Amino acid sequence: MDSLFTANGKFNPNETRGKVISCKGAVVWGPGQPFVMEKVQVDPPQKMEVRVKILFTSICHTDLSAWKGENEAQRAYPRILGHEAAGIIESVGEGVVDMKEGDHVIPIFNGECGDCAYCKSEKTNLCQRFRVNPMKVAMENDGKTRFWTLDGRPIYHFLNTSTFIEYTVLDLACVVKIDPHAHLRNMSLLSCGVSTGVGAAWKTANVQTGSSVAIFGLGAVGLAVAEGARLRGASRIIGIDINPSKFIKGKLLGITDFINPKDLERPVHEIIAEMTGGGVDYSFECTGDSAVLREAFFSTHDGWGLTVILGVHTSPKMLPFHPMELFDGRKLVGSVFGDFKGKTQLPHFAEQCMRGKVNLDEFITHELPFTKISEAFQLLMDGKSLRCLLHLSD
Amino acid sequence: MDSLFTANGKFNPNETRGKVISCKGAVVWGPGQPFVMEKVQVDPPQKMEVRVKILFTSICHTDLSAWKGENEAQRAYPRILGHEAAGIIESVGEGVVDMKEGDHVIPIFNGECGDCAYCKSEKTNLCQRFRVNPMKVAMENDGKTRFWTLDGRPIYHFLNTSTFIEYTVLDLACVVKIDPHAHLRNMSLLSCGVSTGVGAAWKTANVQTGSSVAIFGLGAVGLAVAEGARLRGASRIIGIDINPSKFIKGKLLGITDFINPKDLERPVHEIIAEMTGGGVDYSFECTGDSAVLREAFFSTHDGWGLTVILGVHTSPKMLPFHPMELFDGRKLVGSVFGDFKGKTQLPHFAEQCMRGKVNLDEFITHELPFTKISEAFQLLMDGKSLRCLLHLSD
Ligand SMILES: NC(=O)c1ccc[n+]([C@@H]2O[C@H](COP(=O)([O-])OP(=O)(O)OC[C@H]3O[C@@H](n4cnc5c(N)ncnc54)[C@H](O)[C@@H]3O)[C@@H](O)[C@H]2O)c1
Ligand SMILES: NC(=O)c1ccc[n+]([C@@H]2O[C@H](COP(=O)([O-])OP(=O)(O)OC[C@H]3O[C@@H](n4cnc5c(N)ncnc54)[C@H](O)[C@@H]3O)[C@@H](O)[C@H]2O)c1
Ligand SMILES: [Zn+2]
Ligand SMILES: [Zn+2]
Ligand SMILES: [Zn+2]
Ligand SMILES: [Zn+2]
Repeated sequence: MDSLFTANGKFNPNETRGKVISCKGAVVWGPGQPFVMEKVQVDPPQKMEVRVKILFTSICHTDLSAWKGENEAQRAYPRILGHEAAGIIESVGEGVVDMKEGDHVIPIFNGECGDCAYCKSEKTNLCQRFRVNPMKVAMENDGKTRFWTLDGRPIYHFLNTSTFIEYTVLDLACVVKIDPHAHLRNMSLLSCGVSTGVGAAWKTANVQTGSSVAIFGLGAVGLAVAEGARLRGASRIIGIDINPSKFIKGKLLGITDFINPKDLERPVHEIIAEMTGGGVDYSFECTGDSAVLREAFFSTHDGWGLTVILGVHTSPKMLPFHPMELFDGRKLVGSVFGDFKGKTQLPHFAEQCMRGKVNLDEFITHELPFTKISEAFQLLMDGKSLRCLLHLSD
Repeated sequence: MDSLFTANGKFNPNETRGKVISCKGAVVWGPGQPFVMEKVQVDPPQKMEVRVKILFTSICHTDLSAWKGENEAQRAYPRILGHEAAGIIESVGEGVVDMKEGDHVIPIFNGECGDCAYCKSEKTNLCQRFRVNPMKVAMENDGKTRFWTLDGRPIYHFLNTSTFIEYTVLDLACVVKIDPHAHLRNMSLLSCGVSTGVGAAWKTANVQTGSSVAIFGLGAVGLAVAEGARLRGASRIIGIDINPSKFIKGKLLGITDFINPKDLERPVHEIIAEMTGGGVDYSFECTGDSAVLREAFFSTHDGWGLTVILGVHTSPKMLPFHPMELFDGRKLVGSVFGDFKGKTQLPHFAEQCMRGKVNLDEFITHELPFTKISEAFQLLMDGKSLRCLLHLSD
C-alpha cells in the first residue's frame, strides 16, 4: 500500500498531485543489460498529459526486441520499457477535461489525438502525432523526458508508454479510459497483444464465417488472432509454431490443426495447400521472421488470399517476394494494433471482453511481482509464457 | 481481300472451314531476332476452340519484353507473339455453341473458363486454366501447337493469344464476342492496354471522386489509368515519365500535372508529397522498373495510400521494401488485366467505349500494314507511339 491510497485503501492522490514522485522503475542501461530496479523521479504531467499509477504490466515480444536492442538505430539508454499495462490516473495536466484522478485506464502505444487528418479518416488507425515511432524517446509536448535518475540524468521513454515503472506519464492521446467495473488485470492485455491479434482478424483481415486461417507464431498475438477468427466463425484455424508446447494452449483458443515446421520435410505452404484445397483465405505472420513471412504468403489461396503481417521485423532483410509474385491475386498488408483506433474503439472492445465474449483468461499464463521482471522476460524468451502479468502494488 | 470474303466483300468461310489454312505470320526465331514474315500452317480449331481471322493487332510493351526475351526462362522459339487484336471468327471447333462463324471478337490473354472455382469467385479474375502463364507455349486442350512451319516444325503460342498472324487459334475461354457495330479497330485496344489501365483505376484501385492519383509511366497502360481515373472524377492526376513527349498526349487524357524525374534533384515522391499535402491516394506503376515501384509506393499518402503494380518486372529483383515499410498503412497490390473478368465483363466495357464514354481514339497514334511490324516495334521502343495499329487485311 503506498501513498496513492489512504490507510483504509481509498484512492488519495492529494499527497502527490503536482509534485515529483519518486518511485520504483525497471531501468535498462544498455542492450540486453539486466533490468535495474531503481528509484526514478517522475515529473508531474504537463499540458494534455496524465500521470498513471501502473497496477499491472505484462511483457510483449516487442519489449523483448527493444530490450535486446535488436534494431541498432532504436537503441537509447537509460530507458523504461513496457507498453502493456493497466492502472489508475494519479493526476492530470493542464487542459485535460475528459479524464480525472482515479479513472481506470490502459495505455496505448498507438495513440489517437482525434484531431489530425489521420484520426479523422476512417481508413487508418495511425495518428499523425502519436503513431508508433520507435525512435521517439521523449514526450511529444516539449521533447523532454518525465523520468530522471536521482542524480538528474534523463531516462528515455518507450513507444508512447513506458510501463515498467510504478508511475508513468502519458499523453492524453495514449490513454484509454476503461469501465471501472472491468478487471484491470485482464485489461492490461488490451493495451497491446490481445487487441492487436483480435483486431487483425476482425478489422485488418475482416475474417469471414466459414473461412480458413493460418497463424504463424502462437504467442499471445497469434493466439489472439485465433480467438478473433474463432469468434468470426472461421471453419479452420491452422496454427504453426516451432514450439510444440504452444499447441495445447492453442486448442483452447480455437486452433483446429497444428503444424510444427520442424517435423516436416517439405515447406509448410505445401502442406497447407494440401490440407485446404489450395491454401487458406487468410494467413497471419506473428513471428517477425522473413522466411516465415514467405511461407505465410504462399500458404494463402492464390486469387484471393490475404496475408497480414503482425511480426516486428528487426532484421534489415527486404520483403522476400518478387513483384510478379503479387500477380497471382495474393495480397499482403501490415497491421499495427489490429487496426483499432484506440481511444474511440477500445472501450467497446473492452466491454465485449468484460461480457466474456473474448476469452482473456487463457492469455495470462504467469503472474509475478514487479521486482521479478527479469524472470518474466526469461519465461517469454524460453517460450514458456504467453503473458506474464507483473503486479506493481502488492 | 482474301478467301474469307467473297468477291463482293461478304464473309465466306466455306473454303477454309475444317482445313489447314496457310497464311502470313510474323515469326520470331530467337530473342530480339527480326520478325520473319513467313507462311504458317494453321490447324483447324479443336474442341472448345475457335479460329479467328485477325484484322487488327497492336503492340503492347509485354510483346516487346517477350520479343527481347528479357526473361530467360520464358524464351521459346519459333514463336508467334502478339496479344492485342480484333478479328472475326472463321470457324469453330467441337462443342462451341455460344460463338459462330462471322462473330466479331477480341482475344484475351487472361481467359475465363467460367467453370473453375476462380471464375466462380467474385474475388479474382484469374482463371485456373487460362490465367496468364508466360511459360505456356501450346494449347490447353492437348498441349500441342496449332501453328506449323511449312516443313512441319511446331511454332509456339504466346500468352493464350498469338495475334501477329492472319489466322490464330484460341481457346473459347480466351475470346470475347463484341457487338458487330463496334469499330473493330478500336476494340483491339480492349484486348489488353486500355482494359488493363481503365480496369486498374475502376476495379483494382476503385478510384474515388475527388481523390488524387499518380501514374508512373505514360504508355498506353498508364494513360488508360489516367482515362479511368478522370472518368471516376479524380481531382488530380499526376503523370510521371522520363520521356517528355508523353506529356502532350497525357493532357488530352486527363493528366493534370507532369513530372519528369530527369528534371529533378530530389526523389519524385518528395515532390509529390509536397504537391499533394502528404501524398496521393493511389499510385500506379506502369514501367516494370523496381526503383520506380519504390517511388510509386512512397508517393502515396501514408495511412491509406494504395499502389497498384501493373508493370511486368522482368528482372530478378525482389520487392524493394522492408516489411516494416508496410506498417505505415500503405498498401501494394498487383493487377492483371485491370481485374476485368474478360468474358463476362468486357462486353459491357466495350459498350461503354462504343458510346464514347471512354476515349479510345487517342491511344492509336500510328497505323501500319502488318508487314511493317518491325517498324511498329521500333516506334514503341523509341517511345514515339502509344499503340501502333497493324492492319492485316488491307
Ligand atoms: N503489429 C503490431 O501492432 C504488434 C503488436 C504486438 C506485437 N507485435 C509483434 O508480433 C510478434 C509476436 O508477438 P508475441 O508477443 O506474440 O511474441 P511471442 O514471443 O509470445 O510469440 C512468438 C511465437 O512465434 C514462434 N516462432 C518463432 N519463430 C518461429 C518460426 N520460425 N516458425 C514458427 N513459429 C515461430 C515462437 O515459438 C513463439 O511461440 C512479435 O514480432 C511482436 O514484436 C506486433
Ligand atoms: N498487368 C497487366 O495486366 C499488364 C497489361 C499490359 C501491360 N503491362 C505492362 O505494363 C507496362 C507498360 O506497358 P505499356 O504498353 O504502356 O508500355 P510503354 O512502353 O508504352 O510505356 C512505358 C512508359 O514508361 C516510361 N518509363 C520507362 N522507364 C521509366 C522510368 N524510370 N520512370 C518513368 N517512366 C518510365 C516510358 O518512357 C514509357 O512512356 C509494361 O511493363 C507492360 O509489360 C501489364
Ligand atoms: Zn506489444
Ligand atoms: Zn491524430
Ligand atoms: Zn499487353
Ligand atoms: Zn476458370
